[in-house]
Amino acid sequence: MSMLTIALDIMGGDHGPPVILSAALQAIQKHPDCHFTLCGHRDVIEPALADLRADARERVTVSHCEQVVEMGEAPTSALRTKKQSSMRRILELVETGEADACVSAGNTGALLTLAFYVLKTLPGVDRPALVSAMPTASHHKVFLLDLGANVNCTAEILFQYGVMGSVLAEQTAGIEKPRVALLNVGEEDIKGNAQVKYANQLFRNATGINYIGYVEGDDIFTDYADVVVTDGFTGNVALKSSEGLAKLVINEVKRQSRRNLMTRMMARVALPLLKTIYNSVNPDQYNGASLLGLRGIVVKSHGNASADAFYYAIHQAIQEARMRVPEKIKNRIETVLLEQI
Amino acid sequence: MSMLTIALDIMGGDHGPPVILSAALQAIQKHPDCHFTLCGHRDVIEPALADLRADARERVTVSHCEQVVEMGEAPTSALRTKKQSSMRRILELVETGEADACVSAGNTGALLTLAFYVLKTLPGVDRPALVSAMPTASHHKVFLLDLGANVNCTAEILFQYGVMGSVLAEQTAGIEKPRVALLNVGEEDIKGNAQVKYANQLFRNATGINYIGYVEGDDIFTDYADVVVTDGFTGNVALKSSEGLAKLVINEVKRQSRRNLMTRMMARVALPLLKTIYNSVNPDQYNGASLLGLRGIVVKSHGNASADAFYYAIHQAIQEARMRVPEKIKNRIETVLLEQI
Repeated sequence: MSMLTIALDIMGGDHGPPVILSAALQAIQKHPDCHFTLCGHRDVIEPALADLRADARERVTVSHCEQVVEMGEAPTSALRTKKQSSMRRILELVETGEADACVSAGNTGALLTLAFYVLKTLPGVDRPALVSAMPTASHHKVFLLDLGANVNCTAEILFQYGVMGSVLAEQTAGIEKPRVALLNVGEEDIKGNAQVKYANQLFRNATGINYIGYVEGDDIFTDYADVVVTDGFTGNVALKSSEGLAKLVINEVKRQSRRNLMTRMMARVALPLLKTIYNSVNPDQYNGASLLGLRGIVVKSHGNASADAFYYAIHQAIQEARMRVPEKIKNRIETVLLEQI
Repeated sequence: MSMLTIALDIMGGDHGPPVILSAALQAIQKHPDCHFTLCGHRDVIEPALADLRADARERVTVSHCEQVVEMGEAPTSALRTKKQSSMRRILELVETGEADACVSAGNTGALLTLAFYVLKTLPGVDRPALVSAMPTASHHKVFLLDLGANVNCTAEILFQYGVMGSVLAEQTAGIEKPRVALLNVGEEDIKGNAQVKYANQLFRNATGINYIGYVEGDDIFTDYADVVVTDGFTGNVALKSSEGLAKLVINEVKRQSRRNLMTRMMARVALPLLKTIYNSVNPDQYNGASLLGLRGIVVKSHGNASADAFYYAIHQAIQEARMRVPEKIKNRIETVLLEQI
């Protein structure tokens, strides 16, 4: 295996550089086949590298950046005024080929805008999508996209998302012929809005994709499909309302458990289990979300990510780089579009 | 209090007339201030009334209907070919004023189409909305609309939904000045699609409504708002994906609980509690959904509803009739629109 280079935005995230650096050190130790370019202020990064063994230190480059994109900053402000930021630097390193993938836990809106501007979309892809793996009943993964990169989706964009999600499911979860479904408000052909109905036609007419039809919200989690496609508005609401419901269930169990000694004992045993479940259904916090459809690999870790979660996002970026996901998306889009002619 | 008349569709629902009749008998006993018109085939209904005491039997009318709208039937077919159906009859009784409200557990799409056709919308209301109360962290209710009546919503329709939801929250949950929020993918003003941004302006400019701004999916359940407004596509997905997640959590707990004796005992205690929680977050099955914005009261019980759930939907219809919800929506819409001139 050839050495990969992964660019990390050390300055992003709610908890600041210490958490990100701790994840970076974990990745440096666990991936001797990777070089890491740590982007951010050198005075913050250098001290954290002091204890690295010489052979590990050799695989690390510090790329000093004067600026930081703030968590609450408007994307347009980040684009215009933060040309020397760590977030912009990681994307530029991917664009020039100096890095094979990049990871940030920073401001999502700014990352989407900068990534779209710096990396551009692949030929045949109109808009990038944010995608994450969600849990299902049978402990498989379902890839849900778009989670909020693009709130207005034409049928063509939804179709492209299906192709992109399909490639990601194949390449990173080893699913053969992933079942692709379109999120809708009913399973009958007459249901849905105009974009969804037209996208359904595009999928039905395509031969290079294993399209299985419509799926409703409750079937996202039943292992009915491997890839669920929707616009960024609906996808974001589906993700967040599920997270909200999970939180409600956990809190309700806590509340009820205070009733008596028996329920208190029970809760002591049950809560860690429920938290594990909750964490598994809180995907952007625990799995990282990939920005698909760009001419390079960008993984977004949750702003509130722990070191473990950010490490997982790095791991995911490495996996996508090993599998050359953008190149495979480009090829698949070409094949599918050619078949349609 | 004057006597109310409630029309019930006896033939709708997945479990057929026995379950609906059992709920109807419950309602007849518990509401001596109501008259009930049971619509359906007389051979099915009459035997179930045999044991009623004379004073209760006097408050019941059987309205014989030759036809039934099937659960899987297309709404246009129901509209054209089922003029003698029990579903159509209950709506006609409300339209002529012979009934004050009606309840059905039948085919949702057909009920929406027939109700819109037979009852029409109130002046100033473009489209009806399906609304249900969802649970929140602090055991309050949040009214979420639209749950799927109307997948394409203009900003004006979203605004009308806010007014309608506000009146329902006031009148049936006793909430003063309900906090109305618009569902979006972020809380900043720049987020969202064109309809949502324009609806935000309409709400901000209206004086007769307690608008509190945007809310994200995870805050539906945090008691941040009393009324959450969104289009029927997004609302349906939010409702169903939350239900799906709740099911996943319950199943995961069951699965994990099979591990050893300790976890099995724990599960025996915990599962009923979790089921209670699940039921409370499965609102269309347990609370009934109201169809708002029409010139009459229509409550939709879940097709899969138990007798208790259908009884609850009847109770809700009675409450809306007592509070004359459609009249109050009409007045509020007039006031709010006049203020905008």
